Amino acid sequence: MSQRIIRVAVDAMGGDSHPQVEVEGVVDALVDYPNIVVSLVGKEDLIGACLEKIASGRNSDHSRTKAIPHIRDRISVINADEVIEMGESPSHAIRTKKNSSIAIASKLCRAGDVDAVISAGNTGAVMASSLLYVGRISGVSRPAITALFPSKNNPVAVLDLGANTDCKPEHLYQFAVMGSIYVSHVFGIDRPRVGLLNIGEERGKGNELTDGAYELLERSNLNFIGNVEGRDILEGIADVVVCDGFVGNVLLKFGESTFGFITTQLKKKVVRSPLLMAGGYLLKPALRELKQDMTSEDYGGAPLLGIDGVVIICHGNSTPLAIKNAVRVARQLVIEEANEQIKQTLEKKTA
Amino acid sequence: MSQRIIRVAVDAMGGDSHPQVEVEGVVDALVDYPNIVVSLVGKEDLIGACLEKIASGRNSDHSRTKAIPHIRDRISVINADEVIEMGESPSHAIRTKKNSSIAIASKLCRAGDVDAVISAGNTGAVMASSLLYVGRISGVSRPAITALFPSKNNPVAVLDLGANTDCKPEHLYQFAVMGSIYVSHVFGIDRPRVGLLNIGEERGKGNELTDGAYELLERSNLNFIGNVEGRDILEGIADVVVCDGFVGNVLLKFGESTFGFITTQLKKKVVRSPLLMAGGYLLKPALRELKQDMTSEDYGGAPLLGIDGVVIICHGNSTPLAIKNAVRVARQLVIEEANEQIKQTLEKKTA
Repeated sequence: MSQRIIRVAVDAMGGDSHPQVEVEGVVDALVDYPNIVVSLVGKEDLIGACLEKIASGRNSDHSRTKAIPHIRDRISVINADEVIEMGESPSHAIRTKKNSSIAIASKLCRAGDVDAVISAGNTGAVMASSLLYVGRISGVSRPAITALFPSKNNPVAVLDLGANTDCKPEHLYQFAVMGSIYVSHVFGIDRPRVGLLNIGEERGKGNELTDGAYELLERSNLNFIGNVEGRDILEGIADVVVCDGFVGNVLLKFGESTFGFITTQLKKKVVRSPLLMAGGYLLKPALRELKQDMTSEDYGGAPLLGIDGVVIICHGNSTPLAIKNAVRVARQLVIEEANEQIKQTLEKKTA
Repeated sequence: MSQRIIRVAVDAMGGDSHPQVEVEGVVDALVDYPNIVVSLVGKEDLIGACLEKIASGRNSDHSRTKAIPHIRDRISVINADEVIEMGESPSHAIRTKKNSSIAIASKLCRAGDVDAVISAGNTGAVMASSLLYVGRISGVSRPAITALFPSKNNPVAVLDLGANTDCKPEHLYQFAVMGSIYVSHVFGIDRPRVGLLNIGEERGKGNELTDGAYELLERSNLNFIGNVEGRDILEGIADVVVCDGFVGNVLLKFGESTFGFITTQLKKKVVRSPLLMAGGYLLKPALRELKQDMTSEDYGGAPLLGIDGVVIICHGNSTPLAIKNAVRVARQLVIEEANEQIKQTLEKKTA
């Protein structure tokens, strides 16, 4: 393990319960990972009050209060007067709010003052800010949002999840390269299996985009396993699944809604009989655990791959655990120089 | 209720357990719906043997055996020497197997000898055969496969599910018209709510296709409620959701895999403790019922809307109940002249 100090900027104003969740998650991360320093970016007074509260033992986990004296010097607070709200138009917000927390975090990354940026804010704004201030890795045409879907085996990295609604075959090839490098570092999988999301297994299925992407993937050095269908994702047939951002976004949001839907429908049936209710009661711990498996808080957020710095987007409803895990993944990607590998692979290809 | 006789051709060679499932489903449908006659199309000897078995009381439900004498004269068997298998290339199969069961059923429809065609066979082949032999409703550019997704309210009709991988805005508008008419007849919903599947709620989200479709839908007489996201489908926010066939197909197959995935993962957890196992045991009836709700056998298959005749595609693993319900839906669409309404609406629009 490298002894290098990893510097992370955390947008403290992004999530639904900002800045408390961000501050708590950062404290937890600093306890677990000694070689990290964090800049909390946002309204200084609010962040300060949060840290104060934790230090004084009011309104927080006791273990955090005990930890604060040991980690406090690894936290710096950087003021940002403006906040981009969830509902704002990303491009407009980035143009007009140059002192927003995400803009300032991105600028820190651009200036080389931090290695990674984490935000649970407006996804479009994080993307726009990353593109504008941090920029792309040389050789990357389109950065892509990557999320992990659960599966029978390892989690499956699906990209793009909404950064690019109209794609060309070359973009899908690049997503496959970036996804493979990400998965190999975060899950230690050697030569991850790459699948092209399509409407049939056979070659020649699909549309112009998948036709072209199939050819590029087949000729590449990636471990390309061919087309995969919607049903193959949860089966864990591939480690990386590539698609355009429209399909990916629809799939992600649909997928996120399924567990809640199934449990709601189940509850409606269960209340009809005492025996079923007893069954539901006994099964609760397993259902709760399953829900945790299905949500992403263990996975450490969705990296925006292709940006020339590590950028991780967390869910608006992130918990401190989700923020902490995002810090863990950011640290891993920085230490293992994932971006340098993406650059080398794509430059070789274009050269 | 109309006293008109509805004539249905059932491809007896389509499903995974053909022709038994088809024959049994048809017998059940004829018992329930007196004003229907059915042509079973396929290998005469196999279909005959199946009917024989049911009549003689071997290997079948006793109630079917008792029913046979009363309904047998409403079944005709039409021989078809060829069968298109699930894995075959649809276009090639339709070109070369002119005497396949689905081709002959389609030709019966074209000739006006039947009002509807039902098949649990190769979806692409049913589509190609319908296009080639039956043809489109005047005014329809692209027929669309429509399936019903479960939701917190009524089932939601989603189209297209794979007939058209590359679409233009006009196609999505037509899907909306056809889906609305279908839903209003099958579920008795007045002015069904139509949603455009997109990656955000706000207007302006998405890609060129959704931009153009939004405009057309907004100007139409449909009950257009705007963009819906992946998560809104199971919420039942719309009665009809339109998308291109690539997105729809990925979503359908992903959706079909979710219930099985969740129950498999749950089982893995349950075997770890006797209390959880007891809970699982008690809950089994509710889970079984939920599984039935989530699968489509009650819904009567996926109509191929836009074909100038009623065509219903059933799942390869259809049960007799699914076939029977497909007959029910076909009957309803014929009686209520859904296609005539589609024609009138779209001709008005183009006029």
